[in-house]
Amino acid sequence: MQISLKTSGASTRNLLETIKNSAGIHTNCRIDELYSRRQCCSLNQSKKPDMELKPNETALVLIEFQNDFTTEGGIFHGAVKGVMDSNQMLQNTVETVKVAREAGINIMYVPIAFTSDYHEVTSVPYGIMKGVVDNGAFKKNTWGTEIVDVLKPETDDIIIEGKRSFCAFASTNLDFILRSTGVKNVVLAGYLTNCCVESTMRTAYDRGYNVITLTDCCATLSQEEHDNALKSDFPMFSQPMSHTDFIGILNDEAELELKGKGYE
Amino acid sequence: MQISLKTSGASTRNLLETIKNSAGIHTNCRIDELYSRRQCCSLNQSKKPDMELKPNETALVLIEFQNDFTTEGGIFHGAVKGVMDSNQMLQNTVETVKVAREAGINIMYVPIAFTSDYHEVTSVPYGIMKGVVDNGAFKKNTWGTEIVDVLKPETDDIIIEGKRSFCAFASTNLDFILRSTGVKNVVLAGYLTNCCVESTMRTAYDRGYNVITLTDCCATLSQEEHDNALKSDFPMFSQPMSHTDFIGILNDEAELELKGKGYE
Amino acid sequence: MQISLKTSGASTRNLLETIKNSAGIHTNCRIDELYSRRQCCSLNQSKKPDMELKPNETALVLIEFQNDFTTEGGIFHGAVKGVMDSNQMLQNTVETVKVAREAGINIMYVPIAFTSDYHEVTSVPYGIMKGVVDNGAFKKNTWGTEIVDVLKPETDDIIIEGKRSFCAFASTNLDFILRSTGVKNVVLAGYLTNCCVESTMRTAYDRGYNVITLTDCCATLSQEEHDNALKSDFPMFSQPMSHTDFIGILNDEAELELKGKGYE
Amino acid sequence: MQISLKTSGASTRNLLETIKNSAGIHTNCRIDELYSRRQCCSLNQSKKPDMELKPNETALVLIEFQNDFTTEGGIFHGAVKGVMDSNQMLQNTVETVKVAREAGINIMYVPIAFTSDYHEVTSVPYGIMKGVVDNGAFKKNTWGTEIVDVLKPETDDIIIEGKRSFCAFASTNLDFILRSTGVKNVVLAGYLTNCCVESTMRTAYDRGYNVITLTDCCATLSQEEHDNALKSDFPMFSQPMSHTDFIGILNDEAELELKGKGYE
Repeated sequence: MQISLKTSGASTRNLLETIKNSAGIHTNCRIDELYSRRQCCSLNQSKKPDMELKPNETALVLIEFQNDFTTEGGIFHGAVKGVMDSNQMLQNTVETVKVAREAGINIMYVPIAFTSDYHEVTSVPYGIMKGVVDNGAFKKNTWGTEIVDVLKPETDDIIIEGKRSFCAFASTNLDFILRSTGVKNVVLAGYLTNCCVESTMRTAYDRGYNVITLTDCCATLSQEEHDNALKSDFPMFSQPMSHTDFIGILNDEAELELKGKGYE
Repeated sequence: MQISLKTSGASTRNLLETIKNSAGIHTNCRIDELYSRRQCCSLNQSKKPDMELKPNETALVLIEFQNDFTTEGGIFHGAVKGVMDSNQMLQNTVETVKVAREAGINIMYVPIAFTSDYHEVTSVPYGIMKGVVDNGAFKKNTWGTEIVDVLKPETDDIIIEGKRSFCAFASTNLDFILRSTGVKNVVLAGYLTNCCVESTMRTAYDRGYNVITLTDCCATLSQEEHDNALKSDFPMFSQPMSHTDFIGILNDEAELELKGKGYE
Repeated sequence: MQISLKTSGASTRNLLETIKNSAGIHTNCRIDELYSRRQCCSLNQSKKPDMELKPNETALVLIEFQNDFTTEGGIFHGAVKGVMDSNQMLQNTVETVKVAREAGINIMYVPIAFTSDYHEVTSVPYGIMKGVVDNGAFKKNTWGTEIVDVLKPETDDIIIEGKRSFCAFASTNLDFILRSTGVKNVVLAGYLTNCCVESTMRTAYDRGYNVITLTDCCATLSQEEHDNALKSDFPMFSQPMSHTDFIGILNDEAELELKGKGYE
Repeated sequence: MQISLKTSGASTRNLLETIKNSAGIHTNCRIDELYSRRQCCSLNQSKKPDMELKPNETALVLIEFQNDFTTEGGIFHGAVKGVMDSNQMLQNTVETVKVAREAGINIMYVPIAFTSDYHEVTSVPYGIMKGVVDNGAFKKNTWGTEIVDVLKPETDDIIIEGKRSFCAFASTNLDFILRSTGVKNVVLAGYLTNCCVESTMRTAYDRGYNVITLTDCCATLSQEEHDNALKSDFPMFSQPMSHTDFIGILNDEAELELKGKGYE
């Protein structure tokens, strides 16, 4: 719960004391928000965590959990199955989504889909796009583009629209929706670790979001490139962590922390 | 038809002479494309038009031709009906789309739509967004968001996805699709003259597109603001013209112009 | 001052009662931030202001206050002098900047400048860019591009870099710096009312910022287009207000509002 | 040289025959540009290269060749020196720039720089930004931010402005300048292979540019992550090649290729 009071200077300190004493409440004093951003209150202020995960300011962004990747029979499933199995990627994601939803985190799906003749993309694809086009993957209105059954979206979830390329920001309404809904923290999972997930991570970082990447909720074409991405790149642009650690953080946030002393 | 020949310097001039003499062809010489961009060939070069409308490099972008604007019973139809009627906006657009399609121009629709509780946009709207939310307009899967019957998209047309705000670039895959399909020229029509169409025009201009705005294929809330936009703002960021003038340009482009003397 | 307490459900209501009674504090309860975003607490909640102006979350964005516009001898000064004089635009801006700086608002300048041969922009300009190029305006390292003396930047001010086109977001680091510094509210002033200021306003709106436009701190090529922009367009994408009203709001924010009943 | 002729259908084929026979020219027929984009002429059409490198449509983008990386005494030089030495990165880049300039390719520098107190970026940096801030690197107006002597920009080169983050597009005027100057192909070199260069590559790819990455003109913190990036990621979003291969392509473009049979 946030309480906003308009005060200034000395009155604020007095007020804090009053509140603390009367209600046994320990506050996370953010007087710095009234003064210059760089001045911090020194009233028994514990070190403020660098990345607060308020659920309503957080989005779990699920990138391309679609049958063409996730499911036996999907066009690219064979290519990612190895890593999916080795880190239990899908089960971890299902577990994470469940906890995140309960915590009030925004759940956002970012599927990719193309017209059957790929006429909305370049007629001379190279690189990863060529792989998609040559394999006829992710065609609209096919089973391959449907969200995998175990992660079917629920009513309040958001389906991001427009994705035709690799960074989830590049050709979608993701940034608009994140900004409009006041999201500051993005938590990423999906396919491929070092393709779409990584591009999305890099862009989210450069756009000022706090980025968490779920290392065991991603998969790619080989264990080697998955591990290399997590080792060399993900720590540059995010806080990488296992889904277990992330769930741990979520649970702490949900605790009643109206304790006797101090504050985070 | 474009013929690419790799030559340089003097050989190019000789070659051009040869071609001209042998086939009676008059060339639009663009040797500058081999040299520095700023050097132009002076070999009988007619003035190159500033904005060439090659159909495959051109997109007609139809902004929000949806029942909530276009049709009796639509939530905002009453608000725009006056200007629509005074400039025959819908009929002009239908005529333009027909000619443009035949000429091979890319036809792109940019509809807007929101979840029924508007939860993908800000919870404290102001300005024009407040008007949309307060009036319950453009809700997904309602008749109000459908493209008006007289402009129903055809198979090769493109439906741009994601629009939740006012500039057609802001929350969609429009820019990605324009770039991927090699479009250099955007021709704008739709609603509202001084809202979505104008924002889209301004952004397209700043993104390096050649922008044409169809003055009699737009409508807004009053004749006065429609006229003011066309008079003061549209000439800054586009070449505004009537649909008749635009169709005239298209027809010239489509002519067989292998005449005796130069062209454009 | 914001106090964050981790509670949930019934405990929250009890706590609020405790706080209110003990300290005579009237709260702006935002329990909705713990629950779904749309649920509001009904505990004596007065209407929360739509746009809170916390100074550290606010930027005053000064667009093109450069000699080529502002000062006698500037290339475009003659074109804007009429409106500048009629609404005392420069003096109003000087006064606003002074108050805003004292309040702790971020002051950001967005100057425009080109290489002397304009080789970083299109070689076939049209529209407003053509006007700039044809008139040889805003060339780097000339007096014309310098910030006007009466508004010389101070040490903590930010000079936005990169501007080569009209929307202040389009070719600069403005959005990055706004996001990085936690700015939610942008207050716009400058040139031209219906060119750069208006484009910037439209983009800021679509990017989720709370936008205030200072109607008497802008100028353009004619009184008519200035007035038309303010009347028809600015209310769609901002809260337009005089600098006097804006200063009024700033001063209120600094007041001690810990009163006996209700709140803001 | 490009010759544009307005013809259609049968006339085009006749014309091609005429040209070919009279001038001994072998054409790369692109009739598809007049018809639907996907229809190709089958008149002796040699395989069109996927990525044509017209110099005026190409930019060599030099990312962060600044003393804090490049030179003994630079804050991060020790961190990158190993890879720089092992692949002769700086010498290769100097050689490439020289050839590229002669070929008429646009040379663009993208330096990064911060105010000395880093107040334009987040006050709670994490990831790679934290490394920059903690080490006091790339402060404006210090020797560390100057372009390395051996690559000093020349008069016609472009210095991209605004860079405060990692992708060269994110906070600069790069995209605006590329679009305005008609650049379709971007050739990347610089620091770090798997940080700024890789982010820039990914964004350039998603923005429809043809991307070439110069594998021996990049360096990073370890040989391992350099090699991994080149092996796993760079082929997804670019055509990676040595500078030698790139120079080879440039030289071919400059040759007189009006030979007896076909070309490219």
